[in-house]
Amino acid sequence: MHVVVPFSADRPKTRLAGVLSADERRDFSAAMLADVLHALDGIDRAFDVTVLATGPVDIEGLRPSGSRTASDAVDASVVVDDRPLTPAVNDCLDRTPTAVVMADLALATPTAIANLLDSSADLAIAAGLGGGTNAFLARDPAFSVDYHGASYRDHLEIAREAGLSVREVDSRKLAVDIDEPADLVEVLLHGDGAATDWLEDAGFELAVGGGRVEAVRE
Amino acid sequence: MHVVVPFSADRPKTRLAGVLSADERRDFSAAMLADVLHALDGIDRAFDVTVLATGPVDIEGLRPSGSRTASDAVDASVVVDDRPLTPAVNDCLDRTPTAVVMADLALATPTAIANLLDSSADLAIAAGLGGGTNAFLARDPAFSVDYHGASYRDHLEIAREAGLSVREVDSRKLAVDIDEPADLVEVLLHGDGAATDWLEDAGFELAVGGGRVEAVRE
Repeated sequence: MHVVVPFSADRPKTRLAGVLSADERRDFSAAMLADVLHALDGIDRAFDVTVLATGPVDIEGLRPSGSRTASDAVDASVVVDDRPLTPAVNDCLDRTPTAVVMADLALATPTAIANLLDSSADLAIAAGLGGGTNAFLARDPAFSVDYHGASYRDHLEIAREAGLSVREVDSRKLAVDIDEPADLVEVLLHGDGAATDWLEDAGFELAVGGGRVEAVRE
Repeated sequence: MHVVVPFSADRPKTRLAGVLSADERRDFSAAMLADVLHALDGIDRAFDVTVLATGPVDIEGLRPSGSRTASDAVDASVVVDDRPLTPAVNDCLDRTPTAVVMADLALATPTAIANLLDSSADLAIAAGLGGGTNAFLARDPAFSVDYHGASYRDHLEIAREAGLSVREVDSRKLAVDIDEPADLVEVLLHGDGAATDWLEDAGFELAVGGGRVEAVRE
């Protein structure tokens, strides 16, 4: 099995621009990538991991899950492909089984990802909040992606048209991708890895008010 | 087993006031309640269901899951308790096992709820987005609730202090509660029940733009 982790190396997380500078967004994105790779590392299955990046990634420099020693560096290869996400991922899907796990799933755990990888359906797929596709495992090369718009619905439709069996994976930990300021709350509430450390070091903390909890910066 | 569904009958969903009138919020809340009760109805287990409401509820008038015939009316009793949520729910927890499932889980399915109810831990608990507690099953009367603030963390702590075994249930379908306008997207994307019908009848539809999908009203 092959696991691909797409990663925007150049201009990541533009929708966090209101709360993080460009340099900070790069650092925070790298921390989330480290967490995702660390979660993959924690799965007791045999697969190889490729970071599909839009530019160079210092994979040796990633420090997973709160650990800050070089010996904990993650084990993954990097392929640089500066095309848009859809064609770059589709080229990975000729080879099956291939899983694609987004790099901003800061809450992903080995258990949550393994549940996806253990599926025997032609397509196992986990929705993101807001209609995206946060992770999938394709066991049939007839599946292809189209990340524009509400991709989750489109991906179900692509699978149905190809006659593929589909398992929809119901996971909060895979559903929460970190795109917008409101999403930082989930990292502070539930995360325990490098992304959480990074946010706390940057001065973010939880503010418990009347409605949902918010993330505020000191 | 006893399943309690707390429901605000008088002033529900005030955070949707920007997009729905008071009457609409009442109707939409009733549609979500119907969907939750219908999901409970679809579980092949023996339990009784109580709607714990702050005021009278026309339980006979609820039409679940797109069905509009009286014969599909849901099967639940109503207990009116106008106290705040925390003491009202705590009084239900003397009797175990008791599950508490929020009435605004418009995406809840029989499978997702059954997964919670099948847990053998002293406490099985599903987080909501933003730090809330959307559903739990308590098998030990030592557990109690405190819904103020980031209740999920507090509930884990209460269980730990009481020495209870805890299973954290990882479910997107139980995590998405419908509190804010942005949450309506999830109902339009993934729902197929009375709440989705209600939103569509009220003129809401998905708008696919640059980032996450939005819900807009015609």
